[in-house]
Amino acid sequence: MEQVIKEHERVDDLQLNGLKIIQNPESFCFGIDAVLLSDFAKVKEGASVVELGTGTGIIPILLSAKTKASKITAFEVQESMADMAKRSVLLNDLEDRIEIICDNLKAYDRYFEKSSVDVVVTNPPYMGGNQGIPNEVDLKHISRHEVLCTLEDVIRVSAAMLKPGGSFYMVHRPMRLVDIVSFMRRYKLEPKEIRLVQPTRHKKPNIMLIKGVRSGKPELKFHDPLIVYEDDGDYTKEIYEIYGNAQIDVFGKRGSIDG
Amino acid sequence: MEQVIKEHERVDDLQLNGLKIIQNPESFCFGIDAVLLSDFAKVKEGASVVELGTGTGIIPILLSAKTKASKITAFEVQESMADMAKRSVLLNDLEDRIEIICDNLKAYDRYFEKSSVDVVVTNPPYMGGNQGIPNEVDLKHISRHEVLCTLEDVIRVSAAMLKPGGSFYMVHRPMRLVDIVSFMRRYKLEPKEIRLVQPTRHKKPNIMLIKGVRSGKPELKFHDPLIVYEDDGDYTKEIYEIYGNAQIDVFGKRGSIDG
Repeated sequence: MEQVIKEHERVDDLQLNGLKIIQNPESFCFGIDAVLLSDFAKVKEGASVVELGTGTGIIPILLSAKTKASKITAFEVQESMADMAKRSVLLNDLEDRIEIICDNLKAYDRYFEKSSVDVVVTNPPYMGGNQGIPNEVDLKHISRHEVLCTLEDVIRVSAAMLKPGGSFYMVHRPMRLVDIVSFMRRYKLEPKEIRLVQPTRHKKPNIMLIKGVRSGKPELKFHDPLIVYEDDGDYTKEIYEIYGNAQIDVFGKRGSIDG
Repeated sequence: MEQVIKEHERVDDLQLNGLKIIQNPESFCFGIDAVLLSDFAKVKEGASVVELGTGTGIIPILLSAKTKASKITAFEVQESMADMAKRSVLLNDLEDRIEIICDNLKAYDRYFEKSSVDVVVTNPPYMGGNQGIPNEVDLKHISRHEVLCTLEDVIRVSAAMLKPGGSFYMVHRPMRLVDIVSFMRRYKLEPKEIRLVQPTRHKKPNIMLIKGVRSGKPELKFHDPLIVYEDDGDYTKEIYEIYGNAQIDVFGKRGSIDG
């Protein structure tokens, strides 16, 4: 095995069952979105889970502790990110439950039969890719922009992999809601639940959690809003519950609403 | 002119420029939805406005006071409701600004050229019609269910009537969001703004205000949530501002969130 920690990387304690994560603050650290998605996704015992675009591997690692998923397979197209995620899996002795595949999610059919997966989770790039690829495509840019796959790719591939009745969980920005639900319906991934996340009780939502069901009946349920900060600037009780007691200190800086 | 007030009807003072409205509590009274929609809709001076499915005529009457629309034309398919709305228009001396047309909105092209209207507003039936028409189709049922027109009809007709760049304002239920934005996009009425209305700051939204623009570019903006009640049960400041000071007392009973 290669050295576990490389230059510029650091190891953060997730304060959850002793789990740790390797991150490189100069490229990309996970944010509140990943933590909220891991809490929003419901995974039954023995379920097969796929994540599309895992970055540091944070979501599979959190789901390994929070659920009894049999196997979590995560795609990551960027080699250096996938390598870091693989090292985090090894660091946590999770290689029997989590597999990191370094490939474009559009190549999913090299690894999975169609209609074979119970749950897909994804925290895809938020920014449209249609402004063109900048001269210097860096890791952070690929993690945040639709450079190597579009929102439609993510939804199309999720629908193709899921069993009928299988669940799709995504975190994204409310401003893309129309695109998201339109693509979901186009690929028969019916939107069933939406939870909007607001910075404060008075502010418009800036994060959207959405659940779809493969070939589900149309019936959308809204959840109560998830409010991040109290008016006095402290986190709300619900955010503390989602993060766990100490964990929030670790994520403080990246755990901002802009993360 | 026929007698202005018929049996079982009452006249309510809208506490706005001396305006009044005739309502029949045994059939259908307007609710908070109509008031919120009238506040959400932005109408420029001299604009032509069409309402699809006006019921008592409350929205044209409120818009006549709140905006400088040149002409407000409102469709109402139910004869007795249209008759009551017409009598409210006369009662307020608004016959030069408001016209009530008693016809199915699907017959809009008997009255309007395509692409000729600046603003369409609508507070359509919320309940799907696919459960079949009950034996006793009453006024309340037609006002609340998609018996005589579907959600798709409302959106298709709105898109057909609007000029390119014209605005569409609708109040509906969040549970129909996916249908609404899908139909809007299908008919090139791009969803541009959403405001969700919550009973309290912690409760999920139960009313949705949505704005679309005919042939608009995709870019959805969420508003801050509109919260109806404070935790102590009083109306919020914003609701008082929307209703006006005294008006809220008149609407108290129907002005509930279930209205």
